[in-house]
Amino acid sequence: MAQNRLDAVINLAKRRGFVFQAGEIYGGSRSAWDYGPLGVALKENIKRQWWKTFVQGRDDMVGLDSSIILPSAVWQASGHVDTFTDPLVECLQCHKRHRQDHLEEAFEAKKGRAAASMDEITCPDCGTTGKWTEPQLFSGLMKTFLGPVDNEAGQHYLRPETAQGIFVNFSNVLTVSRKKPPFGIGQVGKAFRNEITPGNFIFRTREFEQMEIEYFTHPDEAAAWFDTWVEACWQWFLDLGVDEANMRRFDVPEEERAHYSAGTIDIEYRFGFQGSEWGELMGIANRTDYDLSSHSSASGKDLVYFDQASGERYTPYVIEPSFGLTRSLMAFLVDAYDEEEVPNAKGGTDTRTVLHLDPRLAPIKVAVLPLSRNEQLSPLARDIAAKLRGLWAIDFDDAGAIGRRYRRQDEVGTPYCVTVDFDSLEDGAVTVRERDSMQQTRVPIAELEAHLAQGLVGA
Amino acid sequence: MAQNRLDAVINLAKRRGFVFQAGEIYGGSRSAWDYGPLGVALKENIKRQWWKTFVQGRDDMVGLDSSIILPSAVWQASGHVDTFTDPLVECLQCHKRHRQDHLEEAFEAKKGRAAASMDEITCPDCGTTGKWTEPQLFSGLMKTFLGPVDNEAGQHYLRPETAQGIFVNFSNVLTVSRKKPPFGIGQVGKAFRNEITPGNFIFRTREFEQMEIEYFTHPDEAAAWFDTWVEACWQWFLDLGVDEANMRRFDVPEEERAHYSAGTIDIEYRFGFQGSEWGELMGIANRTDYDLSSHSSASGKDLVYFDQASGERYTPYVIEPSFGLTRSLMAFLVDAYDEEEVPNAKGGTDTRTVLHLDPRLAPIKVAVLPLSRNEQLSPLARDIAAKLRGLWAIDFDDAGAIGRRYRRQDEVGTPYCVTVDFDSLEDGAVTVRERDSMQQTRVPIAELEAHLAQGLVGA
Repeated sequence: MAQNRLDAVINLAKRRGFVFQAGEIYGGSRSAWDYGPLGVALKENIKRQWWKTFVQGRDDMVGLDSSIILPSAVWQASGHVDTFTDPLVECLQCHKRHRQDHLEEAFEAKKGRAAASMDEITCPDCGTTGKWTEPQLFSGLMKTFLGPVDNEAGQHYLRPETAQGIFVNFSNVLTVSRKKPPFGIGQVGKAFRNEITPGNFIFRTREFEQMEIEYFTHPDEAAAWFDTWVEACWQWFLDLGVDEANMRRFDVPEEERAHYSAGTIDIEYRFGFQGSEWGELMGIANRTDYDLSSHSSASGKDLVYFDQASGERYTPYVIEPSFGLTRSLMAFLVDAYDEEEVPNAKGGTDTRTVLHLDPRLAPIKVAVLPLSRNEQLSPLARDIAAKLRGLWAIDFDDAGAIGRRYRRQDEVGTPYCVTVDFDSLEDGAVTVRERDSMQQTRVPIAELEAHLAQGLVGA
Repeated sequence: MAQNRLDAVINLAKRRGFVFQAGEIYGGSRSAWDYGPLGVALKENIKRQWWKTFVQGRDDMVGLDSSIILPSAVWQASGHVDTFTDPLVECLQCHKRHRQDHLEEAFEAKKGRAAASMDEITCPDCGTTGKWTEPQLFSGLMKTFLGPVDNEAGQHYLRPETAQGIFVNFSNVLTVSRKKPPFGIGQVGKAFRNEITPGNFIFRTREFEQMEIEYFTHPDEAAAWFDTWVEACWQWFLDLGVDEANMRRFDVPEEERAHYSAGTIDIEYRFGFQGSEWGELMGIANRTDYDLSSHSSASGKDLVYFDQASGERYTPYVIEPSFGLTRSLMAFLVDAYDEEEVPNAKGGTDTRTVLHLDPRLAPIKVAVLPLSRNEQLSPLARDIAAKLRGLWAIDFDDAGAIGRRYRRQDEVGTPYCVTVDFDSLEDGAVTVRERDSMQQTRVPIAELEAHLAQGLVGA
């Protein structure tokens, strides 16, 4: 059932143009996905809510937008060149490569016990059992070359996380913003990881988007801020309508944590994947002074903070709430999805598909619908749409039966439909239909903007 | 003078944290720049205004966000693999490589005449004259490798323009949006070009951002839409406050146009560079049916449009307004920059630096300033700041003399300063100072939000 629900959401997302497969006309790629008209609007709305909550809305936060391509030196200092690797094994028969840990997990999921050795494991490509090379470490970093020659001097990496762009700018931001710890820097942007097995729709891709905060504190205050940030992140999802029953916290054990972390709590969402239903939505990590210390040593620049009030010099600890933007988008879609039985005109019921998205996230805020395509109704409806378009994302649809058009808006989560009918020409009023209650209210056109604004606060 | 002005703007941008050099603590890179707290705010505001004007605000436009990494097949079909190249020559003495056309341009700028041959041209690195290899074509595309093996099958390119992501999604978007030509698709995002000589601050970089529209029309209407778009783009800059005297159009001659273009008009801005003062801000190109036809042939998918009303089948022509986002940001900064003589308290004049940015673009909308750091004023001021922060980007500054704080806000373009003084404790009012006129108005705190909102419409 959960899997069917997830399939239904993915199907809707593709059919209505939230998400397209990248390069689809050339056979497509699982590495990346493209966001269609509704997907880009939803994604931008999530970003904006995040920015308003965590950057613009706080006195102790500032924003940053650092570059995707950074010199190798940054990734050597951060530890990524050495430790951001996966063990790969190659099938001796067909020469396809796989992540050893993924093969072992698949074995365990199927057999209900761990494999004693690789001798038991069958190649998913050619079916040969137990013929594997020794594991070799393979870098998850994606490289490119800058400048007129393809050589080591020109080798740069695409960032696997936006975080390092924040650390290397710590000193600059401290100076220009005149903030002092505790304070944080927020950033939204693309990151790239050479995942060996991308999959689960937009959940695991090689190109993805993050929303990251690096929050700098006195070492003694780091533990308390860690807890505060876990709560703040959890609350953000609830505030935007995610059902708490579909969320859980996972205290990541030491051996599974990233190399820089002294403590990580993942917030997981019940996506309904095959195998494990749950997937990581975001993580909050205590990166200690690992990054600032590493960059201090490697660059020779002093990234220590001097507290003028206390006279103390210290390297701040970093609490990092790291959100997956594209994963959040997927969670908001899955969580908002519903198939409801609603009464129909014949006294029976129909099934309507609806996205109960928070109005702040909905890609279209208002759909303007003339009751029929008509020389009198259409111009009035277009007029209303044009005025509202200055305020919100508006759709205009005059094709097909009105009931069908309501359903089309329901399934993409549009909070309000405004119907212009023949009475409108007489009484100067329109019918406003609310998505969740399906309640219809007659509203004078002169009051329409104010009426809608009440339900679209912060949108 | 123009060069000094540009230098002053660049200095301000670095000093106040609009722009930092990427990887500065590791010696920096000219390939890319990082946007600090004020820079990211300004950049986001430009994006938002663009999106509101050209996507959300129009019935004939939809948005898209396609991936940065696309398969090689896309770039072979688009012509970029074959034609997106520059002629490089290598100095036989020091083995440094240069773009031949740039060496020739530099010779001409210095001597006032074209070089008869490369024999006349001196290597800017080692000073040797006339010892050059034959020119070799060098690709401006940046490559990377996906998957478990670094081989040709895994080779992908970082997009050199966002446009191709739109063309390969043409058919998908047409279906889900139910639009018909004339209609357009807008996209904002990063692009990457392996520029041999990046320079002029954020003007020419290897990583940069674009705001692109691909507007699909009937071939017969393409010429008229081309003119319409040139006007609309020109007007967008004027509407956001750019001085028309600093803009000009350049009708690009055939031999200088990109391989896909049947006509290009560049909008140039007077940046004040050394040598040529002017630089390309954006271009509007008539790409004809070049891209859709190329992708139809290469992919085998039919990208023809069938017009049900007329029964006609045709491949739409494409008018492409392509904006440089980071170049626009630089133009808005340069254009807004002013050094003004203003009266001081001693009866003389002082120079104030001010950015006359349109309030919609200003990174900080309102600064809240308690007259002095004080147990009574500071809490009231913080209260006011916290309330306004729900609406706009707010700064709070209680350090130093009030006049100095006004100047700090002027030079980053903050439209309003709100000063909380001892009278505020009695009369419940504050002083609102407007940036350009420096006029001060006493406003009751209860009316503050409404007062500010009048000057911040659309911000």
